[in-house]
Amino acid sequence: MLETEANLGLNQKMNKIGIGLVGCGTVGSGLIRNLPKANPLIGERLGVNLEIRAVAVKDPSKARETLPVPVVADWKKVIADPAVQIVVELVGGTDEAFRISEASLKAGKPLVTANKALLAERGRELLSLAQQSGNPIYFEASVAGGIPVIKVLREGLVANQLLGLHGIINGTSNYILSRMAEAGSDFQTALQQAKDLGYAETDDRLDVDGIDAAHKAAILCLLAYGFLPVFTDIPVEGIRHVSAQEVSFARQLGYVIKLLAVIRPVGSDRVEVRVAPTLLPSRHPMASVHGAFNAIGLIGNLAGPVQLTGRGAGPDATSSALLADLAEAAKNLHDKSPGPLLPKADGKIRLIGKGESVGRFYVRLEVEDRPGVLALVAGIFGAEKIGISSVLQPEGHGAGSVPLVFLLEAAAESSLHKAVALITKLPNCRAPARILRVEDLS
Amino acid sequence: MLETEANLGLNQKMNKIGIGLVGCGTVGSGLIRNLPKANPLIGERLGVNLEIRAVAVKDPSKARETLPVPVVADWKKVIADPAVQIVVELVGGTDEAFRISEASLKAGKPLVTANKALLAERGRELLSLAQQSGNPIYFEASVAGGIPVIKVLREGLVANQLLGLHGIINGTSNYILSRMAEAGSDFQTALQQAKDLGYAETDDRLDVDGIDAAHKAAILCLLAYGFLPVFTDIPVEGIRHVSAQEVSFARQLGYVIKLLAVIRPVGSDRVEVRVAPTLLPSRHPMASVHGAFNAIGLIGNLAGPVQLTGRGAGPDATSSALLADLAEAAKNLHDKSPGPLLPKADGKIRLIGKGESVGRFYVRLEVEDRPGVLALVAGIFGAEKIGISSVLQPEGHGAGSVPLVFLLEAAAESSLHKAVALITKLPNCRAPARILRVEDLS
Repeated sequence: MLETEANLGLNQKMNKIGIGLVGCGTVGSGLIRNLPKANPLIGERLGVNLEIRAVAVKDPSKARETLPVPVVADWKKVIADPAVQIVVELVGGTDEAFRISEASLKAGKPLVTANKALLAERGRELLSLAQQSGNPIYFEASVAGGIPVIKVLREGLVANQLLGLHGIINGTSNYILSRMAEAGSDFQTALQQAKDLGYAETDDRLDVDGIDAAHKAAILCLLAYGFLPVFTDIPVEGIRHVSAQEVSFARQLGYVIKLLAVIRPVGSDRVEVRVAPTLLPSRHPMASVHGAFNAIGLIGNLAGPVQLTGRGAGPDATSSALLADLAEAAKNLHDKSPGPLLPKADGKIRLIGKGESVGRFYVRLEVEDRPGVLALVAGIFGAEKIGISSVLQPEGHGAGSVPLVFLLEAAAESSLHKAVALITKLPNCRAPARILRVEDLS
Repeated sequence: MLETEANLGLNQKMNKIGIGLVGCGTVGSGLIRNLPKANPLIGERLGVNLEIRAVAVKDPSKARETLPVPVVADWKKVIADPAVQIVVELVGGTDEAFRISEASLKAGKPLVTANKALLAERGRELLSLAQQSGNPIYFEASVAGGIPVIKVLREGLVANQLLGLHGIINGTSNYILSRMAEAGSDFQTALQQAKDLGYAETDDRLDVDGIDAAHKAAILCLLAYGFLPVFTDIPVEGIRHVSAQEVSFARQLGYVIKLLAVIRPVGSDRVEVRVAPTLLPSRHPMASVHGAFNAIGLIGNLAGPVQLTGRGAGPDATSSALLADLAEAAKNLHDKSPGPLLPKADGKIRLIGKGESVGRFYVRLEVEDRPGVLALVAGIFGAEKIGISSVLQPEGHGAGSVPLVFLLEAAAESSLHKAVALITKLPNCRAPARILRVEDLS
């Protein structure tokens, strides 16, 4: 607002860089809508200007926005257009998006993408193509649109060894869990509210089952540790099984439940990456990240703990990231600079094995309401050398069974599962145990 | 830790970029100590390596670290050294630091500095020198070392109009105010604790009187609005007059007191910049930024609200920022890229005038303990059209006077001062009024 007016003169003198858009749904329309206001700012701050010169959509007759350029159905024409210097891939998915990206890089045009699935699932191929072609890929919009975490990791904290990362990186799940905590709703009610408000898609699986968060976790792992895990090897647990009861017990214990992505080094050559509903201490700053907001905590060996909070999704927040990438790509073209170095994706690092994870757990059992049961259960945890840090047993109401909730000390996941298997075989145990992660993030 | 070992081979092949250090106190020593561990990471992530090739300190016989290079007293030798490609100015202050910076830019060498006073007080001259010489200045370390806020503003949010910024950007003051809130200490006791722990300098004026925060606010204003205010025009109020009583009344009203920097546009061509102890709602994420931590809130028109939290000071956090700047400067030299565009500092924007600020205020009076006084005072606020949103009057204890605390609705600062002047002239008013800012940050 302040800069726009003062600098029109300056901007008119600048070389414009041509952009080609492949895909123009909500995100692409947002980009087109936001570009005119952003352009003078980009001009003043980076000395370049952006111009959309070609757009491809599946059905040009259904284009949502009045576009400033002809709209074609064949994306190959956009990439081949000599006026297009940077290609933005916004079709989503991993198949056609891969072909578009490949064609763009092979045509010598830098690629900007918001496609986390593409990067997480086919990132190795993509990075290797980029390496061969000598063209950069920019993907700030793939993780937490309103928060420039990719740039912070790549450049701002470039001198830091990362001692760990954790994040609330799926806004839909966070909205649902926040509703459950605030209104005491059950999962289905909160999910329906999220759908009514447009926070959740009709197909809710990517968001609610943790897959979207895992895509982003894989990308953060790539940037932090130069290692892109095989996507299907990442342990992912969604929030469908989180009940109002769990949310309430967690609160009584001084915790909130968040869908948390954790990426942390183990020893010198392994990394733990996982996504799971997790109890966080209520007083931790991440516990007060509510609604559709995202937050990412990074611990640098030099910078110390850093937390970034902001909007994760929505056409405007995603535009903010896409336009930052486009501006950077344009400045690099203008300066004839090769742009950011691509992260390697194939170091000697590997994921820890199944069950090797060590951490704290929350376990809720449903047990027969009679003397001696607590001692039996505690004895099994003890035999597996798992310390109990807190127990909660509300009074029974004559139903014959009572919940029995444990917060445990750190233990290997394999020991935990062994102990729980033994406990649930007890004749006094009335239902399958509910197990959740606990992170103190201290 | 993961990358260092895997990539020694790669790094040995890289061109090293030569660094010259002018000044080597706590920050410079930290930089030298942290460089060996950071270098392989910078190599892997950006493709360049850094090497310190010359150091100047006032008295080379007192150099703190065992330095890898000869140490000289004359900084001109460091700048003239052909092996030095980037100069780091770490002497502090604004006179010699300016001469060093000027010499570096005129010698064609990019400048990296952590010197907020230099940038805030002589930034216009410095930017104009940089412009003329065609060399960039990097200053990530000048604001909130562990938080890469300069990069976030300059690049990550480059497409955003900034609707406002606010920050806790002086760790010493925040430590003192946190102690006062947690332990109920008075200011002097908390200040002494900060000194004992090394959080406060012997000369506490820069930190405690808000000057350091104002330096940083000026730099944030430069980046956000392309405008560097004349430093002495920025209204600055420190925390010396914040009493334990104020902290306690604020808590009873649901607020905490923080030394807050506020930078916000007013209309199309003016900006409000100020630093003052300010009441923030206890439930706002910024209220839970404790101890020596810093936090910066940015509101982008696209990104929405973004909050960055981390360590503001200390040799390691400052190293994180200096090394990121050095790495970027080195990559730009290596790529023959001109580097970031310098912000203009001389747009048509200006600061709002004295008393023109509009906002909410906290006012504590000490009044005679008898009927009718509250009505008198409230009548004066009413006559000035200042709404009262909350009143607190604890019971008197026979001392003849009682505190009377008001939280007011938004009002022009000039009206507030007029009303308070009238009130304190009342014969029932026993002591000067205490006035604090209130920001809801909603």
